[in-house]
Amino acid sequence: MSELIVPHGKEEKLIPLLLEGSELAAEVERAKGLKQIRITSREASDLIMMGIGAFTPLTGFMGKADWQGVCDKFLMADGTFWPIPITLSTDDEDVKEGDDLALVDEETGTTIATINVTEKYTIDKEHECKTVFTTTDAAHPGVEKVMAQGKYNLAGPVKVLSESYYPEQFKDLYQRPAESRKIFDEMGWKRVAALQLRNPMHSSHEFLAKIAVEVMDGVYIHQLVGKLKAGDIPADVRVNAISTLVDNYFVKGTVVQGGYPMEMRYAGPREGLLHAVFRQNYGCSHMIIGRDHAGVGDYYGPFDAQKIFDEIPEGGLKCQNLNIDWTFYCYKCGGMASMKTCPHGKEDRMLLSGTIVRKTLSEGGDLPAEFSRPEVAKILQEYYQGLEEKVEIKLHGAATGDVKK
Amino acid sequence: MSELIVPHGKEEKLIPLLLEGSELAAEVERAKGLKQIRITSREASDLIMMGIGAFTPLTGFMGKADWQGVCDKFLMADGTFWPIPITLSTDDEDVKEGDDLALVDEETGTTIATINVTEKYTIDKEHECKTVFTTTDAAHPGVEKVMAQGKYNLAGPVKVLSESYYPEQFKDLYQRPAESRKIFDEMGWKRVAALQLRNPMHSSHEFLAKIAVEVMDGVYIHQLVGKLKAGDIPADVRVNAISTLVDNYFVKGTVVQGGYPMEMRYAGPREGLLHAVFRQNYGCSHMIIGRDHAGVGDYYGPFDAQKIFDEIPEGGLKCQNLNIDWTFYCYKCGGMASMKTCPHGKEDRMLLSGTIVRKTLSEGGDLPAEFSRPEVAKILQEYYQGLEEKVEIKLHGAATGDVKK
Repeated sequence: MSELIVPHGKEEKLIPLLLEGSELAAEVERAKGLKQIRITSREASDLIMMGIGAFTPLTGFMGKADWQGVCDKFLMADGTFWPIPITLSTDDEDVKEGDDLALVDEETGTTIATINVTEKYTIDKEHECKTVFTTTDAAHPGVEKVMAQGKYNLAGPVKVLSESYYPEQFKDLYQRPAESRKIFDEMGWKRVAALQLRNPMHSSHEFLAKIAVEVMDGVYIHQLVGKLKAGDIPADVRVNAISTLVDNYFVKGTVVQGGYPMEMRYAGPREGLLHAVFRQNYGCSHMIIGRDHAGVGDYYGPFDAQKIFDEIPEGGLKCQNLNIDWTFYCYKCGGMASMKTCPHGKEDRMLLSGTIVRKTLSEGGDLPAEFSRPEVAKILQEYYQGLEEKVEIKLHGAATGDVKK
Repeated sequence: MSELIVPHGKEEKLIPLLLEGSELAAEVERAKGLKQIRITSREASDLIMMGIGAFTPLTGFMGKADWQGVCDKFLMADGTFWPIPITLSTDDEDVKEGDDLALVDEETGTTIATINVTEKYTIDKEHECKTVFTTTDAAHPGVEKVMAQGKYNLAGPVKVLSESYYPEQFKDLYQRPAESRKIFDEMGWKRVAALQLRNPMHSSHEFLAKIAVEVMDGVYIHQLVGKLKAGDIPADVRVNAISTLVDNYFVKGTVVQGGYPMEMRYAGPREGLLHAVFRQNYGCSHMIIGRDHAGVGDYYGPFDAQKIFDEIPEGGLKCQNLNIDWTFYCYKCGGMASMKTCPHGKEDRMLLSGTIVRKTLSEGGDLPAEFSRPEVAKILQEYYQGLEEKVEIKLHGAATGDVKK
């Protein structure tokens, strides 16, 4: 494993916080007697990222000094690079520094971890939003969640007790960093590019991945299995579509697939950096950064997430960005191309909006072969047609139909 | 310029040996009074490479210790990485150590340089051939030239007086390393991939170049304007074909073209390394190494020139290899692909032999669009048809027709 990129942080080794065996059993028992704090799905998924070592070298939720440094300088108090605060909040007035608490996922009721509270502090939420999201617009889904946080942040070391439903629900996909590193190592890979996916893979994504395959040892197609925003395609459909594409259009031994539980923050450039940090832990030397990486709406310029890699503190991050421009099929080029390699005009290119894609698929129509592989389009067609049927049934029962959104 | 890759060697700066101004005039005058030694076109082109700083940090032809170290360990006597001996030979018994000589190109009669002979020595030519070419087969064009060398090698510092016909004959293409570096710098490039070309650019080469454009700041299409072997396409036809391709199928600002005067040695892997050494001097951070780079016949495995980059002394070479597999059009992929990205069968791919390409073009036929851009095919068609006509004319005059070869 020595030839793969080292994990993030000064110790250069994975620091998983998930307990195992008798230690786990004892802590689970102890947790039952602790005061319970309900945590959000974002906090739960951050705990699991810490549990599996994906957030190495974090050992718990951040304190005020780390929070401030990360917001203002991309650096934790000890000088370690980190781009987005990883914090826990509560409105509970009674919690005191020194308390041991059990952290319970408010959505599933699972006790995810215990924390020893070393610091209880307040933050300027608007400052976090301005620095991390570059906006305080409440319509931004990341801003919305920060602004909805409790009055106090709680910092301190955590012991993680559960990976929640992820290992079960995403059996063939969910991976810990130690697992992906073992796979890369067995394949003899050193230069590995991560492709972040939260949507099905159309020809554009295939093109990105294949450029990376050409110049690297392999590509890690790393899918988000954490929570998405409304309207995103569910993980099982996505996984099916991607596996079908990989099976039919990639050479065996050039692609590894995996899933990670982190929730999207839609922080665009800053999230691109966070993606690189935890991909380094997963063993990736490079992170593919395409157009509007981890963005939402019009909050970020299309290539801001590429530029930010040149603006961070020198030497902070070992995982490098592999920038790829906006990609499409060009009839004059006679193949896939990007703005960087195709000199032709808009009229020569196949460009479809998300709206047209969804409309075509839900009406059972075929996507053009230049936009999507037929095997992939078929899977999505079935999904969208299924949705239509559900909506129709609901409409009979006077439902709102907003599932189509 | 500080952000481009540094030139090769410990001093990390270009060392051009070409005299200028009054120094040049004085040395040209002095050369007239010196004993003349006829040199081969290979030796002349090596001198010009030294003259323009492309062979930095060499200051003259190599002595025995450098020759031995380069053959056996890829290292000159002072520990500098170098993959192929750069030597001068003669049969002249009278030349003595300490002599100053004028070096005259036997083909053009131009005095290219003067040398102060510091060492006269003999070499085991077969040893050079075995280590550099991995063969002593006299049918290998590089071996043939080494075996035809004079009895003695002459080492010593040189002063270069002329770039011969290159600046004039290849006016828009011929470049010194300081010139390409200035251009890259003005374009804001840091990561530059060199694409070595000695043939016209078909879709496969376009694909290689475009992968590099996607992941780098730009591509330096660097054409050999030194001597080729019989049957290779002349530089002016090649230049015309390549420029037409670049104008029609590349984005402005992503490609720089240049030419260099070195003669091919067809040393395959070792020559791939030499290509990287002097490309570093030209300002390239990466050297594209495709299938059978700088090879001839079946002397080298198709990817030996990629593998050798992992076998050389650690830290010897800053310019990195950008390996790209065998490329082609695949009908199932619906575009260009390589063995690394296309999982389909031979029957799905467009593969043409050089013989079929030449036959098609010389008969005025069209190459398939999947193999070559029509604008490029047209230029080559005209060239090959011109050859046919010459052959026919010659045949009337009882010529051999071997120009077709």
